Amino acid sequence: MSKNYDKLCEYIEKIISFREAITLFEWDNETLAPEAAAENTSKAVGVISGEYFKAFINDEVKELLVTLSSEEEQKNLDFNQKSIIKNMKKSYEQMESIPPEEYRAYSELIVKSTGIWARAKGNKSFEEFAPTLEEIISYQKKFANYRKKEGQKAYDILLSDFEEDFSMEKLDIFFDKIKASLVPLLKQVTEKKDMIDKSYNYQTFDKEKQLDFAKFIAAYVGFDFTKGVLAESAHPFTTNLHNKDVRITTHIYPDNLESSIFSVIHESGHAIYEMNVDDAITLTPAGGGSSMGVHESQSRFFENMLGRSESFWIPVYPKLAAYFPEQLKDVSLSQFIAGINKAAPGLIRTEADELSYSLHVIIRYEIEKMIFEENVPVKDLPAIWNRKYKEYLGIEPGNDAEGILQDIHWACGNVGYFPSYALGSAIAAQIYSYMEQAIPVEEHLKQGNLTPIVDFLKEHIHKYGATKNTSELLNEMMKEDLNADYYITYLTDKYTKLYNL
Amino acid sequence: MSKNYDKLCEYIEKIISFREAITLFEWDNETLAPEAAAENTSKAVGVISGEYFKAFINDEVKELLVTLSSEEEQKNLDFNQKSIIKNMKKSYEQMESIPPEEYRAYSELIVKSTGIWARAKGNKSFEEFAPTLEEIISYQKKFANYRKKEGQKAYDILLSDFEEDFSMEKLDIFFDKIKASLVPLLKQVTEKKDMIDKSYNYQTFDKEKQLDFAKFIAAYVGFDFTKGVLAESAHPFTTNLHNKDVRITTHIYPDNLESSIFSVIHESGHAIYEMNVDDAITLTPAGGGSSMGVHESQSRFFENMLGRSESFWIPVYPKLAAYFPEQLKDVSLSQFIAGINKAAPGLIRTEADELSYSLHVIIRYEIEKMIFEENVPVKDLPAIWNRKYKEYLGIEPGNDAEGILQDIHWACGNVGYFPSYALGSAIAAQIYSYMEQAIPVEEHLKQGNLTPIVDFLKEHIHKYGATKNTSELLNEMMKEDLNADYYITYLTDKYTKLYNL
Repeated sequence: MSKNYDKLCEYIEKIISFREAITLFEWDNETLAPEAAAENTSKAVGVISGEYFKAFINDEVKELLVTLSSEEEQKNLDFNQKSIIKNMKKSYEQMESIPPEEYRAYSELIVKSTGIWARAKGNKSFEEFAPTLEEIISYQKKFANYRKKEGQKAYDILLSDFEEDFSMEKLDIFFDKIKASLVPLLKQVTEKKDMIDKSYNYQTFDKEKQLDFAKFIAAYVGFDFTKGVLAESAHPFTTNLHNKDVRITTHIYPDNLESSIFSVIHESGHAIYEMNVDDAITLTPAGGGSSMGVHESQSRFFENMLGRSESFWIPVYPKLAAYFPEQLKDVSLSQFIAGINKAAPGLIRTEADELSYSLHVIIRYEIEKMIFEENVPVKDLPAIWNRKYKEYLGIEPGNDAEGILQDIHWACGNVGYFPSYALGSAIAAQIYSYMEQAIPVEEHLKQGNLTPIVDFLKEHIHKYGATKNTSELLNEMMKEDLNADYYITYLTDKYTKLYNL
Repeated sequence: MSKNYDKLCEYIEKIISFREAITLFEWDNETLAPEAAAENTSKAVGVISGEYFKAFINDEVKELLVTLSSEEEQKNLDFNQKSIIKNMKKSYEQMESIPPEEYRAYSELIVKSTGIWARAKGNKSFEEFAPTLEEIISYQKKFANYRKKEGQKAYDILLSDFEEDFSMEKLDIFFDKIKASLVPLLKQVTEKKDMIDKSYNYQTFDKEKQLDFAKFIAAYVGFDFTKGVLAESAHPFTTNLHNKDVRITTHIYPDNLESSIFSVIHESGHAIYEMNVDDAITLTPAGGGSSMGVHESQSRFFENMLGRSESFWIPVYPKLAAYFPEQLKDVSLSQFIAGINKAAPGLIRTEADELSYSLHVIIRYEIEKMIFEENVPVKDLPAIWNRKYKEYLGIEPGNDAEGILQDIHWACGNVGYFPSYALGSAIAAQIYSYMEQAIPVEEHLKQGNLTPIVDFLKEHIHKYGATKNTSELLNEMMKEDLNADYYITYLTDKYTKLYNL
């Protein structure tokens, strides 16, 4: 055992505890806290974020991380310990250049901003959110500048917080490849979009029943309610204190059956990942999932690869039909499968079909690039947003709530996050292709036995938490790095078949 | 302005923020957190409690408190600032003798103990909770010993945490006086207990509807939902982060209509007190209510003085009857009023009528005295509990869940708390008698206008938070200290009339 590592553990304990407190405040803020609370509460969150910062960014931690990275110390450390040190060093370098007072002020801003965003969205008024967004962006630019090394670009720094291996250079190539294949495919599909009738989905569905089914389907795909909570919020999300306290939310629309179902399966994918992280690392800086791309690959895997397949619904659809016997009495399984896979350009990213989804991501990626690399002013963003929707998807938002205000991400300070969604989709398709060779996935789905599937993911990905990065996980599992071809082939095959192209 | 006071404020900010985090963890633990979370989460609560302790108990704060108590510094401070310093000095003295490591271990124990208590209660098994209770008591004894001055008794120290002016010496006199008047009165009433038929209360009442009515009645008495939350938990309680985030819980029984109604009115009384604390002090150590006795006086005032009066129900009963038209169709207002005031010895303190309530408190007071002053072993407690119930109330618990396990208090480490309930009842009756001379209380109730009543309490009690103690509040308001006669007269008049004695 290393004495220096023991010393580091004292800091880790504090860092993790403060982070848990902040996470709980955020969860509470999104799901329950009374309307008038935010201003007072944000002060506490600001103070605790400041303490988090001080517990992490200080000379002793810095020295310990340097010492523990030496060859001599590394000899005495196990794999997890080495990974924890590596991750902490990376985070340390990200944070050390930011003055604690600015970090604290920024944290206080972020607590208030989601409330402001929610009200602005409610009022369909970007103007109400614009000053806050401007402040957030200005902090992000300042922080990126503090962190930036010679020749680095500001947006690349933000991107690296979510996916370390994907700079604009790589992402431009990745998105270009996807565009080249999927844009023509989407066009072909859009011409035949009326082929599939999914009017059944837009009847009236009791909210309580929907919530009940949401709980059923979460448990069905493996969400363990002894270690987790499902609540409602404006925008669905997953958060966790540790591997035995993982929380997901959903938003239930009385006039849209599949919205909550698929968002719950999606968030369950994130949550099951966190629940399966090894006990030995859960209360450490390597205790969460790996990159955002890998995290999204798990949620997309559950939502799309499993949740939109016919095999998945064979044992489950009768249950859903029993929840809503009136509404679904004339809807066959195959109609339902066609319905949940129907591709039609829409305005809302979280409601998008698999085929047009990437275009929603590309729009956000391009706008973020413009904000950070071309300094486009915030006031111009709604017009740019609307123009790009017209251009890529052929439709235009009627108001800001279904346009630029639809996502919570920027209000949370998550700039550079969106590309992970597309990377995640591509990784999910690649993993599925590999998994099919290893175990009889469809058979398991048909039998309603998801355990071998979840266990497979646990063994190859989940249990490692953040001790391995995207590239390590993919290569060790499949002997291959990220390859977008699987994703393109998967979508091409699927939609060619579905629309008889 | 005092530079030293400004310095103190930096510590206050931290102290308050850590306390808010701990409060949120506790709330979450009671209302929502998944079952398996406690062990990991308790570590974070332990760490943050340790940080709370360190932020409060350190040489600089000690020195600042001494300096700021000097005549010279006091000249430059306003009333609130002086009170904050006085309160902090008191808490400092309470805490400084406890070693931080023990305080932290104790805090971790307390996070886990409520879960253990809840399971033991579920299983009706005191044995499952006994080892934890033993640990809690042993910490409390140790802490009381650390704090105790020459000649002081351990239980007196614990009592003073909730009500500084009431030691065993005073409480023995207070309880003896109450016993002398109420025990014979209760006997007379018990003989005629079948005079009032309240079988209507034990029909089946839909849980969702009960919850809806609970929300209505909370708002009706003044609970502001923009600053508060109502949730469900095993045992009703009130907690708050600050004056704009105050939370109450209720427990709904499908076969008992009034249980949730009166617990919600009760908790609303606590909550409205907290919501009305002045903005200038809410985020300070004087920001909560004054003593527990005063706090309970407010909850009892709402629950009993208002909530059990006929005037209160004149405008409200038709609403309740409309929620449950079938169950209440043959129940007149006067039957309902008789029902909610019916006195009959029962096993559960929180379900007790006003007349027998004090006996429940006396039993707990006597047992706590035995634990701390006679060192009675934990394993003997259920038998003592049951014997005392037989002796004072003439009935005996059938199991530990309706006996010694019924209250959460000991699991939270709240030893010495119970007497406040009786003190609160007495204070409530005294305030009501005074208020009636100042404003037309009954008229306001009949008109469904509770605002003048709540404003009266706000002006005389609530807004001051903990800047004044029990005795100061009562004397400044009514030119009289606590006087149990009002309480005895109130109950004697009420029950003589109700039972035609």
